[in-house]
Amino acid sequence: MNNEKRPVNSGVKDSEFVRGKVPMTKAEVRAVTLSKLQLKNSDIVVDLGAGSGSLSIEAARLLTEGSVVSVERNPEAIAILKQNREKFGCKNITILEMEAPVGLDQIAYADKVIIGGSGGHLAELIDWANKVMPECGRLVMNMITLENLHIGWETIQHLGFDELELVQIFVSRGKGVGSVTMMMGENPVYVISGRKGRIHG
Amino acid sequence: MNNEKRPVNSGVKDSEFVRGKVPMTKAEVRAVTLSKLQLKNSDIVVDLGAGSGSLSIEAARLLTEGSVVSVERNPEAIAILKQNREKFGCKNITILEMEAPVGLDQIAYADKVIIGGSGGHLAELIDWANKVMPECGRLVMNMITLENLHIGWETIQHLGFDELELVQIFVSRGKGVGSVTMMMGENPVYVISGRKGRIHG
Amino acid sequence: MNNEKRPVNSGVKDSEFVRGKVPMTKAEVRAVTLSKLQLKNSDIVVDLGAGSGSLSIEAARLLTEGSVVSVERNPEAIAILKQNREKFGCKNITILEMEAPVGLDQIAYADKVIIGGSGGHLAELIDWANKVMPECGRLVMNMITLENLHIGWETIQHLGFDELELVQIFVSRGKGVGSVTMMMGENPVYVISGRKGRIHG
Amino acid sequence: MNNEKRPVNSGVKDSEFVRGKVPMTKAEVRAVTLSKLQLKNSDIVVDLGAGSGSLSIEAARLLTEGSVVSVERNPEAIAILKQNREKFGCKNITILEMEAPVGLDQIAYADKVIIGGSGGHLAELIDWANKVMPECGRLVMNMITLENLHIGWETIQHLGFDELELVQIFVSRGKGVGSVTMMMGENPVYVISGRKGRIHG
Repeated sequence: MNNEKRPVNSGVKDSEFVRGKVPMTKAEVRAVTLSKLQLKNSDIVVDLGAGSGSLSIEAARLLTEGSVVSVERNPEAIAILKQNREKFGCKNITILEMEAPVGLDQIAYADKVIIGGSGGHLAELIDWANKVMPECGRLVMNMITLENLHIGWETIQHLGFDELELVQIFVSRGKGVGSVTMMMGENPVYVISGRKGRIHG
Repeated sequence: MNNEKRPVNSGVKDSEFVRGKVPMTKAEVRAVTLSKLQLKNSDIVVDLGAGSGSLSIEAARLLTEGSVVSVERNPEAIAILKQNREKFGCKNITILEMEAPVGLDQIAYADKVIIGGSGGHLAELIDWANKVMPECGRLVMNMITLENLHIGWETIQHLGFDELELVQIFVSRGKGVGSVTMMMGENPVYVISGRKGRIHG
Repeated sequence: MNNEKRPVNSGVKDSEFVRGKVPMTKAEVRAVTLSKLQLKNSDIVVDLGAGSGSLSIEAARLLTEGSVVSVERNPEAIAILKQNREKFGCKNITILEMEAPVGLDQIAYADKVIIGGSGGHLAELIDWANKVMPECGRLVMNMITLENLHIGWETIQHLGFDELELVQIFVSRGKGVGSVTMMMGENPVYVISGRKGRIHG
Repeated sequence: MNNEKRPVNSGVKDSEFVRGKVPMTKAEVRAVTLSKLQLKNSDIVVDLGAGSGSLSIEAARLLTEGSVVSVERNPEAIAILKQNREKFGCKNITILEMEAPVGLDQIAYADKVIIGGSGGHLAELIDWANKVMPECGRLVMNMITLENLHIGWETIQHLGFDELELVQIFVSRGKGVGSVTMMMGENPVYVISGRKGRIHG
């Protein structure tokens, strides 16, 4: 792709992704999640619980020097992730099919970590993120359950991350029904983010 | 800035902007608004009702070949916009102090148009955007009043824009108060977007 | 029912109503809608677009002297409304199967009017409510489409209702999934209310 | 008040209450909270953290046989609560100025318990509610902090309450500014409710 037409911000539409029965992070939540990563061009981004890969793809297509490691345990999601990687031509995505935290030792380093899914191991994943990133690394997490909201918020504070932020994004979408526009509510997502603090690692 | 550290996505924090008494589009709404522009590196972006410039700055810092024209009528906002342009070193931002639509004829072309404020002339601004952009140009608007929500949605449909989308972004933010986290509601923002259709121009 | 156990506030659970494929106003929106009616015991309440009757039932069960007229055009909803009327033993509900505004002349008087559905005739229904109520009558409307939000808000202002209020109620509900609680977003509902002004009628 | 004009549902407007600097539960959240109590006419309702008394007043004015015990620790709130009790003529409200849970032994029985504020003792207050109510008593709690959301939800489940429900009410309100209507977001409130189970007490 020539430099003129190079995308310079997240902006892939939900409809462009290959879908399955795997839940997918919607466009607006992706936009917010990616903005809190404060992505730099050479970043190595790890996406834990990558699902069908919507966040991984959005990040990878922007990094002309960096790369993405997508971690996912669900074989159906992995299959879709691979299709998306091919569809978007993202050569800088490595897909690891495994159930984190088991196998995370394969990843030596990350500038940025996204936690989209945690399979019940959220605290351990946050702890791993804290270890694998250098100072000033950024962690951004999406939560849809109250239990993970609690664990995520408590753990990120406990581990000494700073620049902490917690927002709930509640989206309603206009859907055309005949000649009228119905507002359809989507599930609210909590986005927690922080920067790895100076002390820990 | 070297290419490694180049930002590749929106992600400036609200606290980094010079503020005034001028209302500022918050980070999450900026992220969503910018994602719907589907920015390309060489885009010329016009930001109507740029306010203190948060959207203009976020776009400009990503465009290594493109540029931004920020239009604003409020002298206080203009002053802050200039401070932000200097603070972020965005040489590719042109600031036009005027009350659109008067003076818009100075702008010959736009790939993308943002309407953040409309001073009561919303329909005319949308009409101008439709004329100044080529086919496939994208318009993204932020509304906080019901009247503009109605005018914006009706006008963009009437003028034949396609890929129409309307979402309401309702954010609540966790605020630390002592040892607890209070959820503070922010004003909901309607984000309407569309692509200039084939027929009109 | 003896006076001790008499219900003194809305509070019927969604699960207690006979359902069908007809959309039903959820408990929280019912609670808000009914509170803005400022119900008095002898009120005659007209429920336009009563659907399966959840609002009609909630109101009727509280009125030991008043009554409810439920207007609905959909035969499937009428059937369910009748089942609910029987289930809850609400002898003070009259059901009129008709497509308002046609047939509304059968209703001579109302203290309070609810508009839950309008079948595209919203402005006329609001106008009728303004005529059928005495001074200080109250109108409360639920909107889920942007077009009706606009028509409802413009019309109620235009007809001189006062004590105007517009709120959007956006509910998310915790759903147990295994051992976790997922927050599920529901469609936002706009609740517009006002009191018939002194001048008109 | 004669029986015709007797109020039969919550519906007091926010502006009717005496206010202070004490935060007040807004009308829509009051409506939802009261509906989940499933109030009966003879209920004895205990309102813990009654604040300025908006929930206590709404309940008391509906109970022609029941009564309300309002518990509050803040002297400023107590003063306002007393003014509201007088303004609304609610002879069936007893005000206890104390910091729960200390002093709760003064209350021998409750049909329904509301927890609006907990001063950091939420788990103990829920435990007390579980003991003071008979089978089928109902507890409804309002939370605005994440920590209390967690404690409230975990505790009510742990103590064996059933018919559990958790909703988040996110309200935006239209505010007239000149000739336009701005949507103003209010702080989201979590409303947790449950019925005392058969086993515990």
